Amino acid sequence: MSERDPNGPVRVTVWGENVHEQREEEVRALYPDGMHATIAQGLAARLGERVRVRTATLQEPEHGLTQSLLDDTDVLTWWGHTAHEQVDDAVVDRVHDAVLGGMGLIALHSAHYAKVFRRLLGTACSLRWRNDGERELVWTVDPAHPIAEGVPQPIVIDAHEMYGEHFDIPAPDELVFVSSFAGGEVFRGGCCFRRGAGRIFYFSPGDQDYPIYRHPDVQRVIANGVRWAARPGPRRADAGSPESPRGWFERARA
Amino acid sequence: MSERDPNGPVRVTVWGENVHEQREEEVRALYPDGMHATIAQGLAARLGERVRVRTATLQEPEHGLTQSLLDDTDVLTWWGHTAHEQVDDAVVDRVHDAVLGGMGLIALHSAHYAKVFRRLLGTACSLRWRNDGERELVWTVDPAHPIAEGVPQPIVIDAHEMYGEHFDIPAPDELVFVSSFAGGEVFRGGCCFRRGAGRIFYFSPGDQDYPIYRHPDVQRVIANGVRWAARPGPRRADAGSPESPRGWFERARA
Amino acid sequence: MSERDPNGPVRVTVWGENVHEQREEEVRALYPDGMHATIAQGLAARLGERVRVRTATLQEPEHGLTQSLLDDTDVLTWWGHTAHEQVDDAVVDRVHDAVLGGMGLIALHSAHYAKVFRRLLGTACSLRWRNDGERELVWTVDPAHPIAEGVPQPIVIDAHEMYGEHFDIPAPDELVFVSSFAGGEVFRGGCCFRRGAGRIFYFSPGDQDYPIYRHPDVQRVIANGVRWAARPGPRRADAGSPESPRGWFERARA
Amino acid sequence: MSERDPNGPVRVTVWGENVHEQREEEVRALYPDGMHATIAQGLAARLGERVRVRTATLQEPEHGLTQSLLDDTDVLTWWGHTAHEQVDDAVVDRVHDAVLGGMGLIALHSAHYAKVFRRLLGTACSLRWRNDGERELVWTVDPAHPIAEGVPQPIVIDAHEMYGEHFDIPAPDELVFVSSFAGGEVFRGGCCFRRGAGRIFYFSPGDQDYPIYRHPDVQRVIANGVRWAARPGPRRADAGSPESPRGWFERARA
Repeated sequence: MSERDPNGPVRVTVWGENVHEQREEEVRALYPDGMHATIAQGLAARLGERVRVRTATLQEPEHGLTQSLLDDTDVLTWWGHTAHEQVDDAVVDRVHDAVLGGMGLIALHSAHYAKVFRRLLGTACSLRWRNDGERELVWTVDPAHPIAEGVPQPIVIDAHEMYGEHFDIPAPDELVFVSSFAGGEVFRGGCCFRRGAGRIFYFSPGDQDYPIYRHPDVQRVIANGVRWAARPGPRRADAGSPESPRGWFERARA
Repeated sequence: MSERDPNGPVRVTVWGENVHEQREEEVRALYPDGMHATIAQGLAARLGERVRVRTATLQEPEHGLTQSLLDDTDVLTWWGHTAHEQVDDAVVDRVHDAVLGGMGLIALHSAHYAKVFRRLLGTACSLRWRNDGERELVWTVDPAHPIAEGVPQPIVIDAHEMYGEHFDIPAPDELVFVSSFAGGEVFRGGCCFRRGAGRIFYFSPGDQDYPIYRHPDVQRVIANGVRWAARPGPRRADAGSPESPRGWFERARA
Repeated sequence: MSERDPNGPVRVTVWGENVHEQREEEVRALYPDGMHATIAQGLAARLGERVRVRTATLQEPEHGLTQSLLDDTDVLTWWGHTAHEQVDDAVVDRVHDAVLGGMGLIALHSAHYAKVFRRLLGTACSLRWRNDGERELVWTVDPAHPIAEGVPQPIVIDAHEMYGEHFDIPAPDELVFVSSFAGGEVFRGGCCFRRGAGRIFYFSPGDQDYPIYRHPDVQRVIANGVRWAARPGPRRADAGSPESPRGWFERARA
Repeated sequence: MSERDPNGPVRVTVWGENVHEQREEEVRALYPDGMHATIAQGLAARLGERVRVRTATLQEPEHGLTQSLLDDTDVLTWWGHTAHEQVDDAVVDRVHDAVLGGMGLIALHSAHYAKVFRRLLGTACSLRWRNDGERELVWTVDPAHPIAEGVPQPIVIDAHEMYGEHFDIPAPDELVFVSSFAGGEVFRGGCCFRRGAGRIFYFSPGDQDYPIYRHPDVQRVIANGVRWAARPGPRRADAGSPESPRGWFERARA
């Protein structure tokens, strides 16, 4: 696999399920080229030459996530909702391995139920929800975290779907954002996890029925997340569990 | 110091600053015998014979927190607000040592600024606030935690002071509750910390201007917190940093 | 499912792969009735009436892990090594669900590679190893943890297999023990994880070639682990992600 | 205070107690210009233009740690041992505030007992020790951590003082290294803590009696630690706890 040039751009692949946009006129009106295109444009707008962005969708062969693409990807963003079950298990295995090997993963909104997210976390990842177009406030609880850099306190999203606790995830390694909703619920909507050599950032905005991915603060968070999740250096393949004769490390030094 | 009988009651000391109750008629009307008395009664009502509750206040000699009392205390609850600076540093040292040695500490509401709480955590412990009597919802984000046992989702407090993020604490070892307020703010109001051999639970309800400590769910949380923070076995004195000759543990076994 | 009587014994099921004991005379000499029998006897000896212990093995129908057995189990201990792949995926699903619902899991030694352990943690769970019969010292790094209660510092195991870092697990929610080996390696051999409503304790002793499960300190740790992992109250089924109309919690109170 | 230029060098101040070097011929032989000079040279050698290094010592006015120096420092490294009590409390306050405001702190070896380290962590920070010149192996337990980048597994230090568990610190936010010693002890010698806006890295090598700070791998770790602890952006002063009228964040947007 090709190693990332530490002075070069972060190689991002924006993956989109791309089903709502095909089927529902209202979603197509918001995202004429698909949500993935808008997410990709937001990254390019925020990060410029620091990033090189491609897109891939469910409908492509191997969902666009070939081994060679993953080998050339530093950070993968994932949006899925209605077609989680259509994602091929072989592709899930491949993405899982890539994350453990060091590829960053940005799981967006309804990706809480994506196969690969659940496999990485090991829990049910269930939550409460309500699609009433109510105000969401995204509060930073860790202002020194790199993902919170340049983000207002709070981010105001005028209308969005509610996601509420209990969110059945392992305790995050770092909790960055907690949302409140007009109806009173709260949600740990900005969570970092470290698994293997990979970094995972879950961010709960945005639903397909709202133009969330055009919101400048949401774009800022995702851009920060990409930078945080990108790791320098070569991807690490699982070495298995090697038998290690006494003094192996002495011999390795010699 | 006297060791706790594992089959006996948890020995709780409820400490109250007891200043608002003396000076302000409205607070006295809510808590005629002081907030500490109401907190103590709530514990007795919830835990019965599983607990033995005493109270101590700022106005007593050594603030009531003599070494012998601390030696006979498994869990100390702390409420203070307007007189943090009047707490003698020698008493703070003593309480700090007791917590590191294994005494539980339940820090309530404005105790986020208590000297001993800040010394244990090491950070500024600042937050946002507004006393508008607005609705607080206390959401459980860790329903399997013993402190959440029997607690409704959410706890509804009809009128309370707002405490909001950013709350400048170290990342809690366990995050149990997150509150939202009618004005939209969120607050990590139920946090567990482990320091030395001691367990610390911070719980943000309740302000002196509201009858929060008569709220059955708040009483339940504090009672659960006391049970969680109570440790069996002898208190541990800091042994310093002993020089340990090679093989000391072999000799200890012999 | 039957709820645990909080005053009754912890219902423990000791699961054993039971293959080495059948095939290898040396192992059978150490564990004539199987490792599971010895582990079960150790628990009964340490915990007496506080526990009710059963065993189950790979060779039984459904590996002995029927739904009704799991429904009647508060804590499951798991030892497997050479036959991980023979464990039926349907049984793995069932155990996974039970843990997320609140059943405790004690994963022993080579269970780091058990299907259910890897599914709960999401990582490769690989490590280094060497079977040289060298001295292992198990050091407590969290002496206030309930699993360390009554455990000497360090536990001395005169001869054991080496397990060494890097151990590819998520950062444990609580790290209790770290081992060193005569050859110089270290290993995070006592780790707690919380997943869903369940508590998981991984403990790296003991290999089938050594009488580790007769070691009184190892028995003490496993007994402590069982008590720590046992949760009171009903098992929680995953409720999925319920749509929650605005004010649902108000109506629930009414 | 002057904000760090994100494209400019990390401004490092290496603080040395500088007492052993003055009093003990053996230490002076190892570190003729003081340990601080060697640490500074190691950083310059490893990081080149990415860093701008100065030194300060206990003997200077205000221990060299004036407010203006701290305002011009992104990361402070701290080595102290025999003169912790001679560090003026006003300077400790100042360094404590700077760390909470975002200055990185690298606490080295016996700085586990430095006043500012204990104040930041809140615990006793005690440990076991033995100065027998025995082999220490520093094992990476989090190979994806930036502080472990380019570090061999394990680092071999042929002769060093033993530091052993129990190390009485809060659970680290990130555990990177665990050492073993020839005598069998283990030690969590590479620990990250986040406090306020500041990042703290404790690294247990090296004692004044050994040329540890000339060891290339130790230099690498400290250089990595400096890069990890350096935060971009302005230092944050504690804003206290502001009263925040309802809708304050709406007005801030307008």
